[in-house]
Amino acid sequence: MRKGVFITFEGIDGSGKSTQSRLAHKALIARGHEVVLTREPGGSPGAEEIRALLVRGESDRWSPETELILFNAARRDHVERTVLPALDRGAIVLCDRYVDSTRGYQGGDPARARLIDLMHRELIGLDPDLTILIDLDPALASARDASVKGAETRFEGRGDPFMAAVAGRLRARALQEPDRFRVLDGAMTAEALSERVVAEIDSRLQEKRGGPGHSGPSL
Amino acid sequence: MRKGVFITFEGIDGSGKSTQSRLAHKALIARGHEVVLTREPGGSPGAEEIRALLVRGESDRWSPETELILFNAARRDHVERTVLPALDRGAIVLCDRYVDSTRGYQGGDPARARLIDLMHRELIGLDPDLTILIDLDPALASARDASVKGAETRFEGRGDPFMAAVAGRLRARALQEPDRFRVLDGAMTAEALSERVVAEIDSRLQEKRGGPGHSGPSL
Repeated sequence: MRKGVFITFEGIDGSGKSTQSRLAHKALIARGHEVVLTREPGGSPGAEEIRALLVRGESDRWSPETELILFNAARRDHVERTVLPALDRGAIVLCDRYVDSTRGYQGGDPARARLIDLMHRELIGLDPDLTILIDLDPALASARDASVKGAETRFEGRGDPFMAAVAGRLRARALQEPDRFRVLDGAMTAEALSERVVAEIDSRLQEKRGGPGHSGPSL
Repeated sequence: MRKGVFITFEGIDGSGKSTQSRLAHKALIARGHEVVLTREPGGSPGAEEIRALLVRGESDRWSPETELILFNAARRDHVERTVLPALDRGAIVLCDRYVDSTRGYQGGDPARARLIDLMHRELIGLDPDLTILIDLDPALASARDASVKGAETRFEGRGDPFMAAVAGRLRARALQEPDRFRVLDGAMTAEALSERVVAEIDSRLQEKRGGPGHSGPSL
């Protein structure tokens, strides 16, 4: 059994998940935990190089299938070099986006959705102990996102219908795996939401350590 | 049915397969065919960028599994952007290394050999019409190879026991798929070998066109 706890943050662009992963990182460090904050695509030197191939250039630079394979290469490197070593030390790993983002953003086509699950099972094989899904209306998220847009435009410039479909696929996955997911309302203030996030993480840490709050599946 | 014919050249480092693919290219062009000569890893702009990630840097830069996934990303791009468009035009595509090199060089571990076949089936899905295996004693190949070593050293510096194992896996695959493979003796002169190579290709072109030489499986 892994000693650490692997927690992922998911949500559409502008949902606030990056902010929430940073706030949770700060709060858990203040409580004396070893906490590793990471992100995908990227999170290890090799994966960041693959990320550079993914985020730069024209939007049709890679076919959807090649893009998926590159995401899995980056994820494999990130998991091997960053996530698993931290979990083996007993750290809490907080990851901004993971396989559910791949399912949400790239899984609109049924054949591709099948490939995503197959590749995750065969090539990665690591599922989070807890996934925090920050659920937010795409129109609100879009307004927020426009105010923080950076230089990496490769995955942006997509209309709300696409983002609404992503949000729908993320919710559908959360319903399929209720033990792994906690769905929180992204319309709350960042501070109020962070309290909820940290409470969910505390509860999962208790379960993992077999404490009084244990009610989930065997981890 | 694809109009073109897809032919791959395989063999250990120094076996002469790159020379043979170039000689075959020249001979087939002289007969008036449209011929595309390509290579792996690489063969399309995106795949060449992935190749750069694979051949540069320290030998433990990527785990064997991440390396495999990157090879498949490069192959997918190469097949989509270079190989299939040429085959659709009716061209003869000659490719210096393809999936059998992955099997030979990375398939020593049984779990990885299984992954290689799974990824090829699920992510690539294109098998050659003919594979020319240039079979050569690793000691002879090593002597030849030392005289042509270039700047890309990432896959070199491996001893003969490794290369002998690669040669063994290539032969084993040829025995498993006798219709697809033709095994030729790399100890012949380049000129004599090229005549044999071109004769094998001619024979496969005849079969593909349903000519009198047809005896292989339905293509």
